Amino acid sequence: MGRPSFAFAFAALLAAVEAQTYRRLGACPSLGCVLPPDQSDFLPGQDFDLRLEVHAPVNGSEAFNEGVPDEDFLVTITKEGGEAQNLADFFSIDEPEVEKWDFQWYEDLFAEDAGTPSVVNVASKIYRRLAIYEPGNYVIELSYYGDQKTTANWVVRPLATEKKAKNVILFIGDGMTTNMITAARLLGHHSINGKYQSLLQMDQFPVLGHQMTHSLDSFMTDSANSASALYSGHKSTVNALGVYVDSSPDPFDDPKVETIVEVLKRTWKSAWGAVSTAAISDATPIALTGHSRSRYQFGPLVDQALNSFTNYTWTNQGGPDVWFGGGAEQFYPGDESYKGKDYYAAFAEAGYDITLNRTSLLELGNSSRALGIFCQSHLPVWLDRNVFTENLEAFQNDPQGGDGPALDLPGLKDMTLKAIDILHKRGGDEGFFLMSEGASIDKQMHALDYDRALGDLLELDDTVRATVAHLKELGELENTLVLVTADHGHGFDVFGGVDTAYLSAGKTDREKRRAVGTYEKSGLSQYTVAPPEGVAYNTGPNFPLNWSPRYTLAQGFSANPDRRENYKVHKSPRRVVSNTPGFGSHEYFVDADDSPDGFVINGTLPVSDSSGVHSMTDVAVFAMGPCQETFGGVYGNIDLFYKMANCLGLGQPTDKAKEAPKYPAGVPAYPPPKGVHPLSP
Amino acid sequence: MGRPSFAFAFAALLAAVEAQTYRRLGACPSLGCVLPPDQSDFLPGQDFDLRLEVHAPVNGSEAFNEGVPDEDFLVTITKEGGEAQNLADFFSIDEPEVEKWDFQWYEDLFAEDAGTPSVVNVASKIYRRLAIYEPGNYVIELSYYGDQKTTANWVVRPLATEKKAKNVILFIGDGMTTNMITAARLLGHHSINGKYQSLLQMDQFPVLGHQMTHSLDSFMTDSANSASALYSGHKSTVNALGVYVDSSPDPFDDPKVETIVEVLKRTWKSAWGAVSTAAISDATPIALTGHSRSRYQFGPLVDQALNSFTNYTWTNQGGPDVWFGGGAEQFYPGDESYKGKDYYAAFAEAGYDITLNRTSLLELGNSSRALGIFCQSHLPVWLDRNVFTENLEAFQNDPQGGDGPALDLPGLKDMTLKAIDILHKRGGDEGFFLMSEGASIDKQMHALDYDRALGDLLELDDTVRATVAHLKELGELENTLVLVTADHGHGFDVFGGVDTAYLSAGKTDREKRRAVGTYEKSGLSQYTVAPPEGVAYNTGPNFPLNWSPRYTLAQGFSANPDRRENYKVHKSPRRVVSNTPGFGSHEYFVDADDSPDGFVINGTLPVSDSSGVHSMTDVAVFAMGPCQETFGGVYGNIDLFYKMANCLGLGQPTDKAKEAPKYPAGVPAYPPPKGVHPLSP
Repeated sequence: MGRPSFAFAFAALLAAVEAQTYRRLGACPSLGCVLPPDQSDFLPGQDFDLRLEVHAPVNGSEAFNEGVPDEDFLVTITKEGGEAQNLADFFSIDEPEVEKWDFQWYEDLFAEDAGTPSVVNVASKIYRRLAIYEPGNYVIELSYYGDQKTTANWVVRPLATEKKAKNVILFIGDGMTTNMITAARLLGHHSINGKYQSLLQMDQFPVLGHQMTHSLDSFMTDSANSASALYSGHKSTVNALGVYVDSSPDPFDDPKVETIVEVLKRTWKSAWGAVSTAAISDATPIALTGHSRSRYQFGPLVDQALNSFTNYTWTNQGGPDVWFGGGAEQFYPGDESYKGKDYYAAFAEAGYDITLNRTSLLELGNSSRALGIFCQSHLPVWLDRNVFTENLEAFQNDPQGGDGPALDLPGLKDMTLKAIDILHKRGGDEGFFLMSEGASIDKQMHALDYDRALGDLLELDDTVRATVAHLKELGELENTLVLVTADHGHGFDVFGGVDTAYLSAGKTDREKRRAVGTYEKSGLSQYTVAPPEGVAYNTGPNFPLNWSPRYTLAQGFSANPDRRENYKVHKSPRRVVSNTPGFGSHEYFVDADDSPDGFVINGTLPVSDSSGVHSMTDVAVFAMGPCQETFGGVYGNIDLFYKMANCLGLGQPTDKAKEAPKYPAGVPAYPPPKGVHPLSP
Repeated sequence: MGRPSFAFAFAALLAAVEAQTYRRLGACPSLGCVLPPDQSDFLPGQDFDLRLEVHAPVNGSEAFNEGVPDEDFLVTITKEGGEAQNLADFFSIDEPEVEKWDFQWYEDLFAEDAGTPSVVNVASKIYRRLAIYEPGNYVIELSYYGDQKTTANWVVRPLATEKKAKNVILFIGDGMTTNMITAARLLGHHSINGKYQSLLQMDQFPVLGHQMTHSLDSFMTDSANSASALYSGHKSTVNALGVYVDSSPDPFDDPKVETIVEVLKRTWKSAWGAVSTAAISDATPIALTGHSRSRYQFGPLVDQALNSFTNYTWTNQGGPDVWFGGGAEQFYPGDESYKGKDYYAAFAEAGYDITLNRTSLLELGNSSRALGIFCQSHLPVWLDRNVFTENLEAFQNDPQGGDGPALDLPGLKDMTLKAIDILHKRGGDEGFFLMSEGASIDKQMHALDYDRALGDLLELDDTVRATVAHLKELGELENTLVLVTADHGHGFDVFGGVDTAYLSAGKTDREKRRAVGTYEKSGLSQYTVAPPEGVAYNTGPNFPLNWSPRYTLAQGFSANPDRRENYKVHKSPRRVVSNTPGFGSHEYFVDADDSPDGFVINGTLPVSDSSGVHSMTDVAVFAMGPCQETFGGVYGNIDLFYKMANCLGLGQPTDKAKEAPKYPAGVPAYPPPKGVHPLSP
């Protein structure tokens, strides 16, 4: 092993800072990596893996030691006030073998355009299934290349042995910002002279907080990594679930962290469930149980939900007591199910009641575990299920894999109320944890279809309202912490009103823009005024009376692909704002069929992007119930996990896992990775 | 007077609903108007005027009674559970004379394009300086045209006689959204692996709320009418201050409502002050004392601040104890001061110390009232005062009216800390109320200059931090309710990172867009990394170390005029994104000199707009101190007034005004309106 000069190493570090939009490896600014990295927090007793990597870049601005990584790196752990100990000694485990691999990355866009990747050779070790029980500050120190060190400061948070809430229900409005909540309220609730005559249910929660959603290695997040932060108290990298992303090629060997349902099951044997209007294998629901750097490993992730993580010894969360959503592709046997297996059958064998439509969902008993998969892909949105119902016929989303449409579909409220009944029964005195997701707030904002997004936001709020009422009926309202939050934002806001008649009549794009009224010319909402022609949507209170008034909201995005906008509700589902000119092209232009009477707004995103993207804004947390007072103010997304864990008494001084079954080690590995290794484009 | 058939009246109402983007008169959907209108709230004892109008549209879709308004309208008031009383009897005042006028409006854009206004004849009465002392629900009923009625339901909120906070400091970040707070935090505070190493001061406030900002007659607001809602508990119309907008031509005869400083002075004789980085005559500071439908009556509004409202008998708020900001044009004698008078002299005669620069501001004693006017127009922003200081030379903003620049300028922190010292001294045991505004968050967002806006947001937060420390030093922290909020939003958000080198090098607009990185390619903030070339801004902690890194934030707007964007900091002040092709044109195109290496983003606003506009989003309220617990959750902007008034003990069962001086009636009226009568374009 060569000994680089200090000056050389310092130059390499500076270069790494410069080329920061593309990253060699998240949470690894120097050539030695500790995962979980510096600034990590832990629940006392929370299981985690620890990965160490030493990098030797072969070429590029960081080229070092002729590409030979130090295999003789050393690692110690020191509790504040104590002495440094060898890691394996501290955890009383055997020293793992050194692993080796290489990966590639691009330092910036110029390098990518030139096709000149930087290659990095890696030496690594992973210590599996560790836990620290004693609260306090710890320092991990990795020493490599003789004089180089990477330090990770960790905090093991205080013990929380007492259970203050019997149940926790966590509602996630995926991508839901305060701006969207404001707009949805205006659509669904009537106001007179600026005073609302009714409010959203979440408006009526007593405590409000904001959570900061940044990723570990980017100030932006996606739904996988933000969900893992909410569920595990550990931030990660875009597309990662329940793991810190290492640089190895295997998407299932990355260092894991235990999630709230894993800790809850191990500690109290409570019931747990997930409900989503997305495919149940989608990031937000699957992050409760999934451990993979790639959220796109849908099949294995469904297997992990049923059987827990089986590549290495890990907590067995027992399988969900209720699991309701879309994503039938991973259940009927075929290309998209894990190893081609029939997962409806696998769940049935494990004792689950299986339901594939709303009618049988409502008829389910409350004693058995239940799997409800109602369609392929994501559930059609509230607007199509309730207003433009003729659209449902056009879907090819039969939950058994046929070409026909799924027409007997539940909504989020149906699924959530049934889930509560089952969890209440099955959890008994140990209570339950339920995550219920309004998924298409995000998905429709990606499509820039704000009406569909806001319709699903109103559906989420309607579900929260029904949940509060139902908990009261069950006598569980006082025992249940109810949270409504989001995982990230979209840069959306309302900036005025639009006379759609005038816009449509305008002869040029620039003329049409005059139809937008701002300030006093925005007027009042016509969505809560009954349509003059007598059309009735019959969608009940707290939803618009009219989805297509002449005067609509002027709604915009901080970022978008090329699009055309007429500010009218899109009566056909699946808005496509931009498209490629033909097969083989990856450059998107305004779609010819979208909003043909509108005006063109050119995009601010790369022309290879066809949909909107997430934004950085803090998102709201509405809290009601036991521990509600701990959810006020501003905090990180990981703090939601610690607040919930504290309320559920999940910070324990001993290994309660010993009382709970652990899944045996040595079962067959997940299949080798398909598709893109994100670090080796 | 003719008697219309019911069917005819009903048809007219329907038409009025249709043509709602343009409005005949806010809060007046039928032909009879009661101001304050339906759904109004009042503090017990709060002074207000009551305006009644009966409309007779001469032409257009609402044409009625051949344009002859009913002059024999009747009005009653009924307390819940009591009997209807004639209004003049209830308030023991003389019946006022009927007034008559006419006005015009356009029913929609087609009518405006065709030049076919609707003309309305009006009969009206106004009852001046009323107050209701007994809490409860009241109904005002206006009867006209024989069988038509307009009903207003009012709530007089509960008494609040006890003072729980000695002092209230209300910080307003004008236009400040949660999205902007998130972005400013990223600029000014360093994070490691997603965990911030320091936070904004407002992040550390214990209680968080959201306020809904809608206007009375539009779901959008401006800063005048939202400030009045915050200060008076009454929503109004765009551009209006401390009044409900009637349809008469005089901008100073509209029905007034008493503001927090008027009630406070009348009730407790506390000290009060306002500090702003805007012209002190700008909407947010002037709404504390101003009563006019037009925020643009700067001269008279400055006179109202010093002498209180003098057209009719009204509360004398005594003049501010401290008044610091820009806007020298209304002070040195000339075209823009009220009646051409020297208001520096007028304030000096009233016993004020006058300061025109930072040096003398810091030397002021604390015993006398103080006026500090530091420049013409608004104060140059933090970024120009602290980073691009050479820009200050280019301003022609001498506070005495000369052509030279104002160079000895205070910041918001200087002004606020000095204001607290004076108010603390002068308020004595009765305490004080201070409003401190970070004004250019809004002004620079209008200019789409997000760096300057976010710099001023960081300055506001820095001021809040210094205020908390200073209150502690004074022993007043426990006695002071500190609030940080906003008046409305702008549709702004961060959606990724930008490689400005790659953007600049791109050959076409579409190529340049590839420089935008989203999700994991957003990277980490480089604003908190010291500039590699060794440039030091020396702006202290909690501000960026580097304002122009290679990798900047991708920042966008939900609405904008045509603009070109390179995502670099604009080193010259006053960004102009779009311009007219020449004299006499009102159509805006991308400005040739702005961001020449950027790419064009066409606008979503009318082509007659040259700047960004407000957005609808709820805005955050951060609270600390006595009564903090009442500021959690979601509520209307008017509720902030009632919460503050409750904490200050301003809801009184008797007329404390009798103990305080009332300004005599009959002094000369303000000059006739200049410029546009907003209802008669």
